[in-house]
Amino acid sequence: MSSDDRPDGTLDPEDWEAFRAICHRAVDRMIERWAHARERPVWQSVPDAVKDALAGEGPPERGIGLEATLRRFEELILPYPTGNTHPRFLGWVHGSGTPVGALAEFLAGAMNANLGGREHAPVHVERQVIRWSRTLFGLPEGASGLLVGGTSTATLIGLACAREAKCPGDVRREGLQGGPARLTGYTSREAHGSVTKAFELLGLGREHLRLVPVDAELRMDVRALQEAVAADRAAGFHPFCVVATAGTVNTGAIDDLAAIGHFCREQSLWLHVDAAFGGLAVLVPELAPRLAGIEQADSLAFDFHKWLHVPYDAGCVLIRDEGIHRATFALRPDYLAAAERGLAGGNPWFCEYGIDLSRGFRALKVWFTLLAYGLDRLGEAIARNCADAAWLGERVAETPELELLAPVALNIVCFRWRDGRLSPAALDALNAAVVADLHEEGIAAPSTTQLDGRLAIRACLCNHRTDRSDLAALLEGVITLARRRAATL
Amino acid sequence: MSSDDRPDGTLDPEDWEAFRAICHRAVDRMIERWAHARERPVWQSVPDAVKDALAGEGPPERGIGLEATLRRFEELILPYPTGNTHPRFLGWVHGSGTPVGALAEFLAGAMNANLGGREHAPVHVERQVIRWSRTLFGLPEGASGLLVGGTSTATLIGLACAREAKCPGDVRREGLQGGPARLTGYTSREAHGSVTKAFELLGLGREHLRLVPVDAELRMDVRALQEAVAADRAAGFHPFCVVATAGTVNTGAIDDLAAIGHFCREQSLWLHVDAAFGGLAVLVPELAPRLAGIEQADSLAFDFHKWLHVPYDAGCVLIRDEGIHRATFALRPDYLAAAERGLAGGNPWFCEYGIDLSRGFRALKVWFTLLAYGLDRLGEAIARNCADAAWLGERVAETPELELLAPVALNIVCFRWRDGRLSPAALDALNAAVVADLHEEGIAAPSTTQLDGRLAIRACLCNHRTDRSDLAALLEGVITLARRRAATL
Repeated sequence: MSSDDRPDGTLDPEDWEAFRAICHRAVDRMIERWAHARERPVWQSVPDAVKDALAGEGPPERGIGLEATLRRFEELILPYPTGNTHPRFLGWVHGSGTPVGALAEFLAGAMNANLGGREHAPVHVERQVIRWSRTLFGLPEGASGLLVGGTSTATLIGLACAREAKCPGDVRREGLQGGPARLTGYTSREAHGSVTKAFELLGLGREHLRLVPVDAELRMDVRALQEAVAADRAAGFHPFCVVATAGTVNTGAIDDLAAIGHFCREQSLWLHVDAAFGGLAVLVPELAPRLAGIEQADSLAFDFHKWLHVPYDAGCVLIRDEGIHRATFALRPDYLAAAERGLAGGNPWFCEYGIDLSRGFRALKVWFTLLAYGLDRLGEAIARNCADAAWLGERVAETPELELLAPVALNIVCFRWRDGRLSPAALDALNAAVVADLHEEGIAAPSTTQLDGRLAIRACLCNHRTDRSDLAALLEGVITLARRRAATL
Repeated sequence: MSSDDRPDGTLDPEDWEAFRAICHRAVDRMIERWAHARERPVWQSVPDAVKDALAGEGPPERGIGLEATLRRFEELILPYPTGNTHPRFLGWVHGSGTPVGALAEFLAGAMNANLGGREHAPVHVERQVIRWSRTLFGLPEGASGLLVGGTSTATLIGLACAREAKCPGDVRREGLQGGPARLTGYTSREAHGSVTKAFELLGLGREHLRLVPVDAELRMDVRALQEAVAADRAAGFHPFCVVATAGTVNTGAIDDLAAIGHFCREQSLWLHVDAAFGGLAVLVPELAPRLAGIEQADSLAFDFHKWLHVPYDAGCVLIRDEGIHRATFALRPDYLAAAERGLAGGNPWFCEYGIDLSRGFRALKVWFTLLAYGLDRLGEAIARNCADAAWLGERVAETPELELLAPVALNIVCFRWRDGRLSPAALDALNAAVVADLHEEGIAAPSTTQLDGRLAIRACLCNHRTDRSDLAALLEGVITLARRRAATL
């Protein structure tokens, strides 16, 4: 028996004082890491010895106790993080988290609430977060919502509602196997892959998602959208939804939501807005006008774990018409019978609005974040990221060895090192190698993407800890490493 | 500016010592609740004043700081939990959580890893948890898996793989809109509603999920399954999968997995096993033989947050054929390009095996739980629940005022108060009222279900804190409250 074992057979610690001391030490350890975040490398590769230690096939027959488990965590896991809590993490679109959110996760874990339904305070917290969210985006009072893992699932739920609302017949009962409905949807070529994945999963098929061309600012070409819908109608398809993007993953471009919304209403198409991170720009007074039209969304997906820095994972879907939302997912078998009162009350239950019946208390970390910081302070961090991205774009533009590959629309800077002597392929390879070098040397962590067939170094400022000294270090790192590599060619 | 504001504009606390003190106090507060769990009511209704305080429409423009947020949490939320951390919570199938899991949630929140992919220690932790899981159920070394919110999503993923594997044509590209594939699936009438929801979401349509009758032990009638498949083939349908249940939600019945598996292989049908909670009975040597055949699953879904008491939410899907799993979900656009080295390495990425691209470090609380307690101790808690359920069933059977409504197959006891003078409808109403009374008086929290058209009080022992004194209190509560109600009729 390990020392934690209790004679009563429960999984609670025998000695609460010892458990308290372990928790306090764990808290102190994490504070030490937060307080000195900039002093560590952004990232370091996971040593083979660590991989080997985490590669065992057999599950642990006998426990080693909490203290030994925590030691193993500190030795094997904690030193090799994703890197996104570091000020010089600038890759993909990762939020950087907050100490407030981490504490909320402990409290949520301790309460261990199941938000699938029933009557208890946690469901009221999630409802409050959803109300706050719909207010933020200007959706009407009756709009419903659900917290989910992220925008991918939120988009899946939004498009399931669109299918329910627009598909002829009873799609839940008959499926799409019954007849040739030939539903078609529309999004831009710069849209996120999760839209394609949702079409696949829903049985719509990705060939029925039309990828509309973009304009010079990489926004959906609304004229081309109109033509595509008209052509499909003429060909006997059944256009049913448009997915607009508020902040594309490549460059942060924001589609013309007002124009697309107008077209959708006119054509009786469902408007889903993928606002994964860009939607939160509504918190910045100077940026909010660029999101005009977002309030017309029939469904809207966004993340709290990106630009609001709630710890992973936490996303949200909002649905304008609560009735359609519930009609898409509600199913209450006997064992989930609703009660007028008691714990089985609390109708409607959240499981009637999505896929999961067991749902953690994800809402608490969002509630803590919004309440502790307030929209103003969270918005200031977003504004600072955008201002710093513009500043970085200017530094790139004025540096002869670098070139900007796309306009800085929001918070994303796509650039690269250039050298007229190198072939396009060699230049792509060199820039890709520089990014891997930056990671491996722990200097900075941008990611890469392709723009117009060229590999771009992509710096996404979605990090409340980043300041201009970090961006200067990124550019200096790129130039130094690129020169070093170029010299060996 | 709130007192937490930092002049540097980050969301980190200005004063780390103050933050440390807040965290330590929060830890102490939760320990106090755990250590005195039995002394509180199981549940109490959420007062109107609390609902009103959580009903504000407008998001907080200005933050109130962490300390005030925590006070509001302690006042409004903490006193009104789901109740499943209490020893006399016996409703639905809820795990009761552990202090170890809560601490792991804090650590995961602090690391803030995104497990969508890339190369960092957390992805190796999730891989280890998946390897441990496949070993537990006897799936082969090549089997893949993914941690998800729960069995509902796990079943959706499993059935998406089944559709990919068995549907003629390229279902991701064409969808089900192309032609009359008429795929049909099979599960028992006692199966969980999540199977129906998965059929709906995947565009298969719930009318193409055949609900096979059950035998006297409420297990799928394998003969009836065979007949249903043959009849569908004869009628031009395309049978593609069977969903067997290891532990039904109503009574804990376990389908004959070996016989169903044999039939599936013979007929080239995909076998998905919904092992949401019952699958974990493999940890109990006396129960494991009843799960024989589970190792034949093509996909298997189960939860860590139920009988392993990992905090909500944490489920898992395992897929026998990694190639099919990846072929069902993989999509790597330019902005997710794989790298040979650096942070963008770490192939394959978890986002290629499921719906979500942003994925929290759910694996850590599972890893902590398995490693700290070990399978033996977790299995003992499960064994104790089953033994106590049998004991409770015997107490019901020997009590003239009560009747047992189904065999105690595993850990679930369905019973009710009886009174020959009352009509069936009045008896149903009385037993439902007794359950709500039990909740409202904070005595115990069973749930209800319907069996053979009769309302059952349903006690599910999925709680490591429950002992026989709690079960005796449940029975005493039922009898006292039922007599009181009957006296007023």
